[in-house]
Amino acid sequence: MGAPANFLQYVDNNADSFIKRLGEAVKIQSISSDARRRQETIAMGLWLNDQLTQLGVTTKLEDLGTHVMQGQTLQLPYAIIGKLGEDPKKKTVLIYGHYDVQPALKSDGWATEPFELVVDNEKNRLIGRGSTDDKGPIMGWLNVIQAHKELGLDLPVNLRFCFEGMEENGSEGLDECVIAEVAKGKDGYFGGVDCVCISDNYWLNTRTPALTYGLRGIAYFAINVSGPGQDLHSGLFGRMVHEPMTDLIKLMSKLVDHDGTILIPGIDEMVPPADEEELKLYTKMDYSTADVEESAGASIALSDHKETVIMGRMRNPSLSLHGIQGAFSDVGCKTVIPSKVAGKFSLRLVPPQTPEAVIPLVKAYIESEFAKLNSKNKMNVEYLHGGKPWVADVKHWNFEAAKKAIESIWKKSPDYTREGGSIPVTLTFAESLGVNVLLLPMGRADDGAHSTNEKLDRSNFIEGTKVLGTYLYEVAVAA
Amino acid sequence: MGAPANFLQYVDNNADSFIKRLGEAVKIQSISSDARRRQETIAMGLWLNDQLTQLGVTTKLEDLGTHVMQGQTLQLPYAIIGKLGEDPKKKTVLIYGHYDVQPALKSDGWATEPFELVVDNEKNRLIGRGSTDDKGPIMGWLNVIQAHKELGLDLPVNLRFCFEGMEENGSEGLDECVIAEVAKGKDGYFGGVDCVCISDNYWLNTRTPALTYGLRGIAYFAINVSGPGQDLHSGLFGRMVHEPMTDLIKLMSKLVDHDGTILIPGIDEMVPPADEEELKLYTKMDYSTADVEESAGASIALSDHKETVIMGRMRNPSLSLHGIQGAFSDVGCKTVIPSKVAGKFSLRLVPPQTPEAVIPLVKAYIESEFAKLNSKNKMNVEYLHGGKPWVADVKHWNFEAAKKAIESIWKKSPDYTREGGSIPVTLTFAESLGVNVLLLPMGRADDGAHSTNEKLDRSNFIEGTKVLGTYLYEVAVAA
Repeated sequence: MGAPANFLQYVDNNADSFIKRLGEAVKIQSISSDARRRQETIAMGLWLNDQLTQLGVTTKLEDLGTHVMQGQTLQLPYAIIGKLGEDPKKKTVLIYGHYDVQPALKSDGWATEPFELVVDNEKNRLIGRGSTDDKGPIMGWLNVIQAHKELGLDLPVNLRFCFEGMEENGSEGLDECVIAEVAKGKDGYFGGVDCVCISDNYWLNTRTPALTYGLRGIAYFAINVSGPGQDLHSGLFGRMVHEPMTDLIKLMSKLVDHDGTILIPGIDEMVPPADEEELKLYTKMDYSTADVEESAGASIALSDHKETVIMGRMRNPSLSLHGIQGAFSDVGCKTVIPSKVAGKFSLRLVPPQTPEAVIPLVKAYIESEFAKLNSKNKMNVEYLHGGKPWVADVKHWNFEAAKKAIESIWKKSPDYTREGGSIPVTLTFAESLGVNVLLLPMGRADDGAHSTNEKLDRSNFIEGTKVLGTYLYEVAVAA
Repeated sequence: MGAPANFLQYVDNNADSFIKRLGEAVKIQSISSDARRRQETIAMGLWLNDQLTQLGVTTKLEDLGTHVMQGQTLQLPYAIIGKLGEDPKKKTVLIYGHYDVQPALKSDGWATEPFELVVDNEKNRLIGRGSTDDKGPIMGWLNVIQAHKELGLDLPVNLRFCFEGMEENGSEGLDECVIAEVAKGKDGYFGGVDCVCISDNYWLNTRTPALTYGLRGIAYFAINVSGPGQDLHSGLFGRMVHEPMTDLIKLMSKLVDHDGTILIPGIDEMVPPADEEELKLYTKMDYSTADVEESAGASIALSDHKETVIMGRMRNPSLSLHGIQGAFSDVGCKTVIPSKVAGKFSLRLVPPQTPEAVIPLVKAYIESEFAKLNSKNKMNVEYLHGGKPWVADVKHWNFEAAKKAIESIWKKSPDYTREGGSIPVTLTFAESLGVNVLLLPMGRADDGAHSTNEKLDRSNFIEGTKVLGTYLYEVAVAA
């Protein structure tokens, strides 16, 4: 069925004013991880709340309390919970987005002022911090609602909203807030939600729209090794004592092979191999190792075999060594034997893996490897944090609706992708609401979400707005 | 022959005033590595220069120029070059010491104010920064000269002095200064020097005086591995690309075995095994693995075999892994794939090893191990700095004189020790002057030279002063 022609026309006609509103949002430096910007982050939430209420959305500002950051006790930015439409004959779609952004300084290497939205008319790009992550997508939803209001059109579905201001800083307080709202049942804002749509990730490349149906989980560990009572001088003690770094480096070297194979017995084995049908998915995908190497900034793909590389990110677990706490890490030369070191690494998990399932394997293996060292140092494996992986059913009408919307606007079928990283709230929605969650990215792979010169292509903003609107019409008729 | 009885008596009678003078020296916060204390470090040199001239020493203050530190261009503390006595019939002894100290804050864990010399009458200890390293030994020499001046005694030898104020910060400018002075031949202060005595290290334990005849050299390296154009997100790129940390940790794990064996082919093999005579030296030494473990603060000796542990420090090379630059090193959890990492390690060298001899072995081995990884990352091995090991002839009259002085004062034969660390000026003196250099420690193993609550036992200061004086008499008659 698609969206009405006058909606699509309205979006084209009002593109400039939509971009202007995105510019107003970008101007507010809502950097959630910087204590000095906390008031601006809160102000950004209030600005967004104003926009929503002016468009007829009923909202409430959820006070998430305080937290301690950078030595200060700070008020958390509000979570904005909202609703628009109460028609029992319509489906109800819950929309999530976040209004906070990553830090940015011009001196980081930006070609323009990061908090001024610059329209690059040559490349048709909107450049500025938050343009694609995640103010652009939020503005996309506002554009859709505004169009219907101005045109006097009824929205085809009831909408529910959950916008937060701490996504770039651990989403503190959000899970509890969502779970509490869900627990209110029909009396709460999230009563009767039929599906969830999150627009907060990216196409796999710069050419083909994507729908994302999976995210890897994570299990983050530290290997703590300690020995001497204090840091020792390597001249005085070298070759007299068991050095914690020698043990730690040996243990860290036993975790992952240079080709990415996880050496901890039982981890890779938990994941069933891809069957022919699944393999075809990756073969079909509009993606190449050249795409990987372009985004990594170097020719370092683990394989020339496209499917192997894609599966490495989307359907296989991975293990990365992040660094060592307590060792010498500065420039220059220090002849220290560090007394207490912590090697940090994490596993990215895929179904059916869970942190609970991998923790005992990780601990047992490292303990057995440590025993082989005959060291008099002390060692323990510490599980620091984690989250389960998530995979959605792509045959659900929620995904079908999004697919039709993309085909209708972009004239192209989407790539079905799984992401290598985690968006924890996805799992919170899926588990607490028990409904299908869809990740519907607006931006492209080269948007530079957490990097310098973050951008959103003009077409992704404008056509993307049309996709979001059309998606709601497809949801309305889906079954 | 020994020292005259009235000299020894004078030292006992004036112990309190000697301690008072040490207290004045400790009070001056001559922390050479702290730009904020540079003026005090220079002031300490001027105070010492005053003391020397008042005692009849002819001095010159060597301006070593400036250097840049902590973002400031700073004047270097003066080297004090001095002479006392020009009798051609006497031997000439060059004395070295340093008047700068390590940093110290009460909040580091000091029980007393670090820059107030506290006399602990219960344990008979003099507690304060610099008490043992190296203001105590310098004051010891002043005590000896003062005693002779006050008693109207001729010193048995001519004395030459070299005191610096940058030892704890790389001895910047000193080598050039020493070499230039030596190059002046008979016209310079160091013309006609017969031997050198350095009192700037420690007994092997808390019981037996020591004479030190060897120091290990050093060769410090970085293994640089780089890949991605920028740091990557481990969720997005884990198991898609060659991660520099995976390669680096593998390489670092191939350098040293958990028992201290150096795995780089040819390094350990350069050092001939100890023969029976040498082994007896270690067996005889008043030292146990319990001593090692006490000073290391934990039961982590590499072996229960005393000789193995002693040889590990004194006559064998060692390899220590110091840390990694560029990786995540903070508290908490960061899911980063670092793009560029540098693993730091150093080798302690013993004769006949030199940095020049080991560098090609280190580079070739690591390069061959890297080749096995089939990684697309870039790797290079960087030699950062180094110095040759030093060993002196213990049968030289300079050592014999010191041995007799120790036996006369302490009623005990000294341990003959080699130190695991480096005092680069030792080699500079030995090579530029071509004479025997003796390390004659004043303090004990538990003095905590670079640590909190640094102390010098009262007996080590007072009896140590007697040893220094007696040593000069023994030198005078030695042949």
